[in-house]
Amino acid sequence: LVEDCLELYLRVARLNNTATRIISGVFLLLLSLAVFIYGGVPLYVFIGLVATIAVIELRRLLILVNAPPITWLLYMLVIVLVYKQFFAPFLSTELLLALGLLVGFVTAMINSKSRVAASIAMGSTLFGAIYLGLPIEYYLRIYTHFYGSSRGMMWTLLVLLSVAACDTMAYFVGRTFGKHRFFPRISPKKTVEGAVGGIVGSFIVSFIMGRLLHLGITDIGVLSLVIGVSAQLGDLFESLLKRNAGVKDSGTLIPGHGGILDRIDAALIPPVFVYYLAISLHMF
Amino acid sequence: LVEDCLELYLRVARLNNTATRIISGVFLLLLSLAVFIYGGVPLYVFIGLVATIAVIELRRLLILVNAPPITWLLYMLVIVLVYKQFFAPFLSTELLLALGLLVGFVTAMINSKSRVAASIAMGSTLFGAIYLGLPIEYYLRIYTHFYGSSRGMMWTLLVLLSVAACDTMAYFVGRTFGKHRFFPRISPKKTVEGAVGGIVGSFIVSFIMGRLLHLGITDIGVLSLVIGVSAQLGDLFESLLKRNAGVKDSGTLIPGHGGILDRIDAALIPPVFVYYLAISLHMF
Repeated sequence: LVEDCLELYLRVARLNNTATRIISGVFLLLLSLAVFIYGGVPLYVFIGLVATIAVIELRRLLILVNAPPITWLLYMLVIVLVYKQFFAPFLSTELLLALGLLVGFVTAMINSKSRVAASIAMGSTLFGAIYLGLPIEYYLRIYTHFYGSSRGMMWTLLVLLSVAACDTMAYFVGRTFGKHRFFPRISPKKTVEGAVGGIVGSFIVSFIMGRLLHLGITDIGVLSLVIGVSAQLGDLFESLLKRNAGVKDSGTLIPGHGGILDRIDAALIPPVFVYYLAISLHMF
Repeated sequence: LVEDCLELYLRVARLNNTATRIISGVFLLLLSLAVFIYGGVPLYVFIGLVATIAVIELRRLLILVNAPPITWLLYMLVIVLVYKQFFAPFLSTELLLALGLLVGFVTAMINSKSRVAASIAMGSTLFGAIYLGLPIEYYLRIYTHFYGSSRGMMWTLLVLLSVAACDTMAYFVGRTFGKHRFFPRISPKKTVEGAVGGIVGSFIVSFIMGRLLHLGITDIGVLSLVIGVSAQLGDLFESLLKRNAGVKDSGTLIPGHGGILDRIDAALIPPVFVYYLAISLHMF
């Protein structure tokens, strides 16, 4: 099933033009809205699928820089990090990481003839688990924070929609008013104007969702700034990962690279910070 | 000061003979016993020093396999993980890892001309932080678990002394009765007989300390098995790290390699498992 979905998704990715990208972007956004609002089994399946494809893509990027992770362990860690939030929220992430380290050690010992150093294989595995697993865990931690209330769902949408607005505004403001290039070595098309536009976009959506959640204006301002800045850093970082892997142009979707990771890169950074910010400033 | 200590310690390490090793091993064990029993400032200083030297050594091993970490970030993460247990135990390790990832991203972007891929630098940094920082954090978590009681100190000694007994018994039983080699590709001198001896050693010390803590025999058995097995796996894994780095013979202390990491390798794996085992089986 997973391979079928991947096949389908690669075929879509090959139709590389702006229209397809906008359509697939809007489709993914609407789909995630739908499953987060509906919840239950569709949400489990959706999140599991997104996580699996993201791991497939990240693993390829890691292999291209000669740092392959311990594949099965990376899948296990991400999947357990994701689903523990549904089924065993008491399970400690630190215990999981320690278990991952121990199991990875044993795997590395068994494969001790491998030309990849054990520390590199472990490093890639832990990097992947933290880069992909931690944010998904925290979306679900936010989502499940309020028993029998829609506030968790509303908070999740606040983050996801703010990230989407940040992406979109950064793109259009950058294209219209962009003059000063932002980080040309990593992502030549990004501009300072676009970055500011992204933060404004994040603020607008955070304001609307925040008022629905009865948040004060200061809280909303801090939230949207954290989301807008960290989302754009996440976007840049994924560009750097692709650049390191020799997949230069983030605009060209080479089959098997980019794809889901390109879509969710900005959404991967904010959730952990939003969660602890909301806790420590008593917003929840 | 740190460099002075390192210099002194390297000079000692160069006097490579069994007597020196036994003396320095016993000295380190007695010193750690003393600071854990005394507590307070000497303990902070001792743990900080051990963590710093361990990071220096691990960093060299990582550089030798062409996977240098982001050095300052690795120091920061390990030091904060260690001292947060004294000064800010409410600080979430997951938040620290997420912050480390974000700060590492920005550092990697600034150094984007580096020939080391960003994912490798991040992987090595996270690996180091988890491999060294997590166990020290958990020793201190065990140590500070009981307010105004010596039970935390006793529990910490239970783990540290069981690991030491495991190491010692594995060595002497292996040397006396060892016939069947255990993992010759990684550590040629280890034998199955030695490994069993190590677990027996761990049991003897766990039994003595466990009775002082009024633990039942089943609890003691489970604890000593977890400690004995994970300590020996930790020992093997550090041998693999050195082997990957081209520092072949774990008996020859080449200046700058081995040293503290050689001494503490077995102690790095048990604490996280002991902590959650003690919690979930209501031993604390």
